[in-house]
Amino acid sequence: MTDLREMGERAVAAKAQLQTLHAGERTRGLMAAADALLQNAETILKENNTDMENAVRNGMNPGLQDRLRLTAERICDMAEGLRQVAGLPDPVGEVMQEMTRPNGLQIRKVRVPLGVVGMIYEARPNVTADAFGLCFKTGNAVILKGGSDALHSNAAIVKVLRGALEKEGISPDALQLIADTDRQVTVAFMKLKEYVDVLIPRGSKRLIQSVVENSTIPVIETGTGNCHIYVDAAADVDMAVKIICNAKTQRVGVCNACESLLVHGDIRERLLPKLAEALAPKSVELRGDRRVKEVLPDCTDATQEDYGREYLDYILSIKTVDSTEEAVAHIGRYGTRHSECIVTEDEKAAEKFLNGTDAACVYWNASTRFTDGFEFGFGAEIGISTQKLHARGPMGPRELTTYKYIICGDGQIRG
Amino acid sequence: MTDLREMGERAVAAKAQLQTLHAGERTRGLMAAADALLQNAETILKENNTDMENAVRNGMNPGLQDRLRLTAERICDMAEGLRQVAGLPDPVGEVMQEMTRPNGLQIRKVRVPLGVVGMIYEARPNVTADAFGLCFKTGNAVILKGGSDALHSNAAIVKVLRGALEKEGISPDALQLIADTDRQVTVAFMKLKEYVDVLIPRGSKRLIQSVVENSTIPVIETGTGNCHIYVDAAADVDMAVKIICNAKTQRVGVCNACESLLVHGDIRERLLPKLAEALAPKSVELRGDRRVKEVLPDCTDATQEDYGREYLDYILSIKTVDSTEEAVAHIGRYGTRHSECIVTEDEKAAEKFLNGTDAACVYWNASTRFTDGFEFGFGAEIGISTQKLHARGPMGPRELTTYKYIICGDGQIRG
Repeated sequence: MTDLREMGERAVAAKAQLQTLHAGERTRGLMAAADALLQNAETILKENNTDMENAVRNGMNPGLQDRLRLTAERICDMAEGLRQVAGLPDPVGEVMQEMTRPNGLQIRKVRVPLGVVGMIYEARPNVTADAFGLCFKTGNAVILKGGSDALHSNAAIVKVLRGALEKEGISPDALQLIADTDRQVTVAFMKLKEYVDVLIPRGSKRLIQSVVENSTIPVIETGTGNCHIYVDAAADVDMAVKIICNAKTQRVGVCNACESLLVHGDIRERLLPKLAEALAPKSVELRGDRRVKEVLPDCTDATQEDYGREYLDYILSIKTVDSTEEAVAHIGRYGTRHSECIVTEDEKAAEKFLNGTDAACVYWNASTRFTDGFEFGFGAEIGISTQKLHARGPMGPRELTTYKYIICGDGQIRG
Repeated sequence: MTDLREMGERAVAAKAQLQTLHAGERTRGLMAAADALLQNAETILKENNTDMENAVRNGMNPGLQDRLRLTAERICDMAEGLRQVAGLPDPVGEVMQEMTRPNGLQIRKVRVPLGVVGMIYEARPNVTADAFGLCFKTGNAVILKGGSDALHSNAAIVKVLRGALEKEGISPDALQLIADTDRQVTVAFMKLKEYVDVLIPRGSKRLIQSVVENSTIPVIETGTGNCHIYVDAAADVDMAVKIICNAKTQRVGVCNACESLLVHGDIRERLLPKLAEALAPKSVELRGDRRVKEVLPDCTDATQEDYGREYLDYILSIKTVDSTEEAVAHIGRYGTRHSECIVTEDEKAAEKFLNGTDAACVYWNASTRFTDGFEFGFGAEIGISTQKLHARGPMGPRELTTYKYIICGDGQIRG
């Protein structure tokens, strides 16, 4: 069985070494890691093939198989991802605030790495390299627990990355993988508070729920997105149709896809037929309330349960509301605080919606699909936070840091 | 039994109203609350008297009795505290970042209230008013669970504050108290994730531990402080003695008091006799290792357990180390990431210590007692965070906020 405490000790030791590395040394480590992925692509593909064979044998569904599968091109993307992260601005060491107190004490608030980051995720081997990249970039040691179905792939990737670090004279324990499929080990990992500073789960609602319930380590929740678009009475109908189609269908399996449409009663007759027509080529199933069905008789009945679901599929629930307030209240009840949008030409309604809606990202006349580290100009992201502590929305390098106060005196004591 | 879900619903409704208040209205609410405390001092004192009688009957220790006791002067201090908070800069609405993307999307990162704050604390009625003040200042609704021993006092204070809000036309549910002494209710409160955005425990290590283990709400840990002073070989001995005496004895029962001294082997013969002499008038018990005892034969033996203790008393553990690295490693093992200090004239040693020590506040040649919202110039604080997520060190109004991204477009969709 995995000795988690020993892994914790190793991570803490690696953390101490990482703190002594300059930004240039960290960049070199990332470049070496990228090269190593390319040089060892064949080995990684071979191990991934073992995972894929098991997946097929176990009847994994095609969508998950696609996430698990690596190709030469995908390994190139992983390497390219590491190079891009290497090129991002370095947040570590930034002086966030500086002041001299009346007693002469000099106080500096300085950005520092979080320390040891834990990540629990599902069967997506690319997350292994991505998570390492962002954590290493920001001077953090990382312990990964990936999905069991990807164990061979992850072990191969981690071995290659650790080898690259070692060649650069950097402790390979900056990256460790829990190569264990026992659920008890995962739960024990969630309680490794003595060594791990933050735990980031990435994956299904169920995975995140389990981490929230079991972890004693501070958690950053990511990813569940029941995102709404509210089409106000004063919306530009053509713009609304365009935004809804994009947010719903540009990529259905992602957390910032639109799952639910709120339509103002006064605009439903103008909006819904056009929308149904626009969504028809993608075979999106529409599930609406009574007033929606008055306009779209072929629409399925929406249940209360529908309004709370993140479909990640070609399905859209539709509810009629009679005011911005009602839309905001509905989102307060069913939303997951991810990305919420209003389409309107009425500035007052927009302001009410943007201020009143409690979410990481609130949109006015734009697709929710823009909630993404790259789209925001932050570069890579380790996830999209849906909680309010520490980080909200796309989490890039800066969100993998904390700060400390450095206080310099010449003998000051408190009176 | 307390209906926690109903309290949660009320808090969420109050939160929505708080979001519509301007800074001036929140200031007026705080001033009215301060006035109301003074006007109702007699009632509050009477209820506190009931708590005090019970405490005496139950044999509460004198230190805790002192924390529980209210006087006319202490109520004045509580009111004055609210007025000071009213006068602090308002962090809500601050635009933290603003950018226009190449596609024309305008993204603003704006500071907003956390929403609903939960606080669990012990028998200190002044925390009731303080916590309300900072939460209300920053547009947060708050649900308090104070120590059972202070129940009458807390209920009286909360009733007065709620009355003041109501008179100002503000929802009194901005402040709610769980007036229940059943531990099951407290544990259920820790799982009220649907309504409460952050839970801040304030009090003993045991209380904080229980919250960390039971809560599904994101927690900010506060307060446990096993703070060290490391006296380097190159220290100014007189300065070191002055700083240690202040950090140990200026107020022994607080989290930023010094609990443990690390002394470089080369300076122990010059430092320790002077230190023992300086601490003698305060009867501080010294517990040292073998090499300390060589210099101070009367010193008690320090055990491994001593190095891990937060005494909050007139006791100081002393350990000999032979390098800054050893001091940093010892603090890494026994420290609580609160406040740590090096005394030295050697800039290189100081830099090594300040960078290498993982704590909210790291000091060079100054007393650890300065870790305090007022001393840092932040005004009042709701606690001192010893974790790394969200906030570290003194938590003032700014640390009771989060942010959201507001994204405005004119129909942008993702390609």
